[in-house]
Amino acid sequence: MAATEVLNGLQFFEGVEKLLEIWFTTSDGNHKTADLRKIPRVKLEALMKIVRCEIISFVKNDQIDAYVLSESSMFVSKRRFILKTCGTTTPLLCLEPLLLMAEQYAGFTEVEDLYYSRKNFKRPDLQVTPHQHFDQEVALLDTLFPDGAAYCLGAVNRDCWYLYTLNPIPQRLPSLPNPDEPDQTLEIMMTDLDPEIMSIFTKEECLNATEATKKAGIDKIIPNMIIDDFLFNPCGYSMNGVTKNGCYMTIHITPEPDFSYVSFETNVPSSSYKEIISKVLETFNPGKFTVTVFSNQLSPTKDTSKELLFLNQLADWQRRDVQQCSIKNYDLVYAFFCRFPS
Amino acid sequence: MAATEVLNGLQFFEGVEKLLEIWFTTSDGNHKTADLRKIPRVKLEALMKIVRCEIISFVKNDQIDAYVLSESSMFVSKRRFILKTCGTTTPLLCLEPLLLMAEQYAGFTEVEDLYYSRKNFKRPDLQVTPHQHFDQEVALLDTLFPDGAAYCLGAVNRDCWYLYTLNPIPQRLPSLPNPDEPDQTLEIMMTDLDPEIMSIFTKEECLNATEATKKAGIDKIIPNMIIDDFLFNPCGYSMNGVTKNGCYMTIHITPEPDFSYVSFETNVPSSSYKEIISKVLETFNPGKFTVTVFSNQLSPTKDTSKELLFLNQLADWQRRDVQQCSIKNYDLVYAFFCRFPS
Repeated sequence: MAATEVLNGLQFFEGVEKLLEIWFTTSDGNHKTADLRKIPRVKLEALMKIVRCEIISFVKNDQIDAYVLSESSMFVSKRRFILKTCGTTTPLLCLEPLLLMAEQYAGFTEVEDLYYSRKNFKRPDLQVTPHQHFDQEVALLDTLFPDGAAYCLGAVNRDCWYLYTLNPIPQRLPSLPNPDEPDQTLEIMMTDLDPEIMSIFTKEECLNATEATKKAGIDKIIPNMIIDDFLFNPCGYSMNGVTKNGCYMTIHITPEPDFSYVSFETNVPSSSYKEIISKVLETFNPGKFTVTVFSNQLSPTKDTSKELLFLNQLADWQRRDVQQCSIKNYDLVYAFFCRFPS
Repeated sequence: MAATEVLNGLQFFEGVEKLLEIWFTTSDGNHKTADLRKIPRVKLEALMKIVRCEIISFVKNDQIDAYVLSESSMFVSKRRFILKTCGTTTPLLCLEPLLLMAEQYAGFTEVEDLYYSRKNFKRPDLQVTPHQHFDQEVALLDTLFPDGAAYCLGAVNRDCWYLYTLNPIPQRLPSLPNPDEPDQTLEIMMTDLDPEIMSIFTKEECLNATEATKKAGIDKIIPNMIIDDFLFNPCGYSMNGVTKNGCYMTIHITPEPDFSYVSFETNVPSSSYKEIISKVLETFNPGKFTVTVFSNQLSPTKDTSKELLFLNQLADWQRRDVQQCSIKNYDLVYAFFCRFPS
């Protein structure tokens, strides 16, 4: 990633992203004409200013608009908005203007689902308010959403992962809507990565993003994606991949040895994520990693959650933590792995 | 409970307990002659002073010493120490002296397992350091245990339950000992209780503890226990029950309508806890409750954990949260229920 922070003469960059995913609807549930992609580009650019980043690349198809940002990625489809930003960005500050834009330009009046999540930061002290502490983030979100529930999975005093989501009290929403489409998300957050692999993601070793993508084998993880990739100067890498039917994958790399971080995320359905997880681990060879899998009742991924629950070890990595959590229509599995000592 | 706190003219009492359970061993795993019950009574009394409570009643058998405290209970068996204290007690401050006593008097040099847990307090601001915030408690525990892992189950911004336990890194403990005996614990923490039932636990309605125990049906929840019960003046109730083979149950009641709280805990094994949970709910009729179940691989209770995972509702109560967590040799299930609106 491009942005760095100077502290005690050390250029630190927080690779860990803040991930915001919102599903919109209308009060009558009819959203034939509503579409988030009606929000004008100039408005999205203004939104990114609030978040403290900017759009640097863009691909689209019938199903999805995929943006590479100066700090990670944004995906906009008909009713789902995903914003994933690293560094010292402030995505929660764009929530109110985003909700207004969704109503004014896109025709959406209601938030059906919201997920705000992130791994624990390496340097929370370098973050900008309200992102210095999860409690601060929750306090802001609680002012906007009366039904918000905040969770912390994993060990609070070591590696953990925070999630804020809507978990309405049943009497307020008498008929909890069943999911009308399969949905799933796999996320892998890796630290302590192989320095030799990380050196691929520098201008010293690769001329451009296409070269880095091929050399690292990123194009082989999930084939047949239209890839939009970006190699930062002097180092750092981002890529978005989209499929014809609107699925996405996204990878972001902070290669510096002192604070190396790589994230992988996709919503491609699969009856087992074991193969994709293994490919990602082979590609990046992390010292530690966190996996999260969300899957709703209609998703073919449901069983892979159970698979993760019983996976005490995965090639060279040993599981340290595993937790399962039920959230409205979703099953969520969190697992944290460390490499076996050599 | 006896102790109350005056704030703005209101007598508030924190019923929510801090629960500490420690399993001791020796460096060679041989503990034939070691026994925590060798710690002299006067030393235990000194320990309780540090915790800010005192021993008020006592029963024992071959397997277990059970103490009723001015603030909840203490159970001492050969190698397991359980201290459960409510109000503004400070159980974590007794840890260092307890470890010394276990070595000096009982012959135990090592802590094999440790569990420190509690529900979120109703009034954390009234607690004494380090108990005002879970982060403080974790910081203290981390100074004593290098392998401690801190978890928060449930919604951090609503009702939740904190746990600190030892989760050693595999390389430090090459052969993680398999459990050598079945073990399980069921805990039910209830709030917003039925005021008519709560009035039983006052000196106005009952002459003594025996009358309150019978009237409420507490002796029927798990039959054949030797019961040591205590009715506080003007209100509040504690009981310990022990079985011949060393199992225990313990109930603590803060009956005041503004901050009513009842806790139930037992380690009685069962292939299904559904019946015990239902009896407890019928007995106390809470508005909300939290259930936690720990079970190790040898425990017959293992399947009841899975039962809880799929239990969306239980009589008049609807589940709001459910989480599962794997900890060393134990499976842990956390669930939070609220009464359906009438």
